[in-house]
Amino acid sequence: MTDPSEATLSALDLRYGAPGLPAGPSSPVIEAMLSHRSYRNFLDRPLDPGALETIVAAASSAPSSSNMQTWSVVAVQDPARKDRLATLSGNQGFIRHAPLFLCWIADLSRLERLGEAHQQRLAGLDYLESFMVALVDAALASQNALVAAQSIGLGGVYVGGLRNKPIEVAAELNLPPKAFGAFGLAIGWPDPEARAEVKPRLPQSLVLHRETYATAGEETAVAGYDQVLAEFSEANGMGRSDWTGRMLKRVAGPESLSGRHTMTETLRAMGFPLK
Amino acid sequence: MTDPSEATLSALDLRYGAPGLPAGPSSPVIEAMLSHRSYRNFLDRPLDPGALETIVAAASSAPSSSNMQTWSVVAVQDPARKDRLATLSGNQGFIRHAPLFLCWIADLSRLERLGEAHQQRLAGLDYLESFMVALVDAALASQNALVAAQSIGLGGVYVGGLRNKPIEVAAELNLPPKAFGAFGLAIGWPDPEARAEVKPRLPQSLVLHRETYATAGEETAVAGYDQVLAEFSEANGMGRSDWTGRMLKRVAGPESLSGRHTMTETLRAMGFPLK
Repeated sequence: MTDPSEATLSALDLRYGAPGLPAGPSSPVIEAMLSHRSYRNFLDRPLDPGALETIVAAASSAPSSSNMQTWSVVAVQDPARKDRLATLSGNQGFIRHAPLFLCWIADLSRLERLGEAHQQRLAGLDYLESFMVALVDAALASQNALVAAQSIGLGGVYVGGLRNKPIEVAAELNLPPKAFGAFGLAIGWPDPEARAEVKPRLPQSLVLHRETYATAGEETAVAGYDQVLAEFSEANGMGRSDWTGRMLKRVAGPESLSGRHTMTETLRAMGFPLK
Repeated sequence: MTDPSEATLSALDLRYGAPGLPAGPSSPVIEAMLSHRSYRNFLDRPLDPGALETIVAAASSAPSSSNMQTWSVVAVQDPARKDRLATLSGNQGFIRHAPLFLCWIADLSRLERLGEAHQQRLAGLDYLESFMVALVDAALASQNALVAAQSIGLGGVYVGGLRNKPIEVAAELNLPPKAFGAFGLAIGWPDPEARAEVKPRLPQSLVLHRETYATAGEETAVAGYDQVLAEFSEANGMGRSDWTGRMLKRVAGPESLSGRHTMTETLRAMGFPLK
């Protein structure tokens, strides 16, 4: 633990695209998190020996609901399989160039097999609650993995597109019933020539509520963020596009969900009754 | 980035309750993650000024699906409210003693209000997929918050019990429709007198799959883990209790889910149609 440093103050300003947040106690971990950015351009360089195992050990170190550990990860390095998964995940080319593509699995199948080995039908697994536990377990583990990877010089980006075709992904990864590919994480050595900036987030006043949830001042704060994000996207060659416009399109309706509007039926077909 | 150190090797052994995992590249961040433990005993000492804001900035720095940022956090410090939330969350006393209780919200309500402000009905929010995005966004943010808090000397523990009574929790926190208290995180200064050990996790061979999912050797590996966890729980005064026995009880049926077997109906009542 250190006192608020110049580095933290500057990192806070970049994170919110605006000055003003008072810096509290900080640490190298916090400074690293504040400067997080997504990388989609990777060098043609393999990971170091043992890096995958260490990253997964960090993932296993994340908390898990009742220690159920209802997650798994499939580490894909084979170029042909990465290529097929890239195609299934909205044809995102960077997946092909990442040396490692981690597929995070919301995994109730291990407990199901445990029940079978003991002649018990574990009906608790049939409920939406259990699926939610698995999804959260997978997310906590994967975020530890990403932060761990970044701490040894790697970079990465999550791939929600892994949910575009869950049944095809399950076939590709040989997933049993009750195992669902929740999202991907492409990892590699960041190309220092490629641009990757810290993306400003919503003002803290919009996400942090004190004692109870409050929406006063929200419209003004969103308008300010729209300005910040429009300037950010213009400066990064992505055209002047604000948050509100993107959001209104992104969740406009079922057709804007990249095929994922059938998720309930898909999950049921994959062994999650979601009772 | 540093070479595999003695500290990392020892931390890996503790994490898995067994030696043998080859250490790869490491870092202070990874060593901190490997030595993660849950704290439920807190000193009667407030957080430092600015600590909450810095922790939430770390949370905001986590990746978010399409930058939708479909999460919020309600920071509860008022003793009376903490007391009521402790009661609602399975009457877990440590929540009352933690100086800070963070309630992590899967929050589609901000986007709903954005749509209303622009006279648009955002039907994409009605789908299970959008609820899953919100849940994962909240989990990624909260895990950054926990790791950040630990890096400045604080400790904490997640509280899944916040889902025992979601509607009552929403009333307590003044949550609007489409905002769901997904889990809590109690944070404070760890009591150095209280025992808190690194809990061994499942062997890496069970959670890390290479190229495709495989279950060969699973029963033997689980038996080994049962032994490790039984010894761990006995050594920590929790009686000799293995993983298999706990798991078979934990998901035996709807009655073992602490009231959360009605989650589908509850979420629908809270404004998530889960289409």
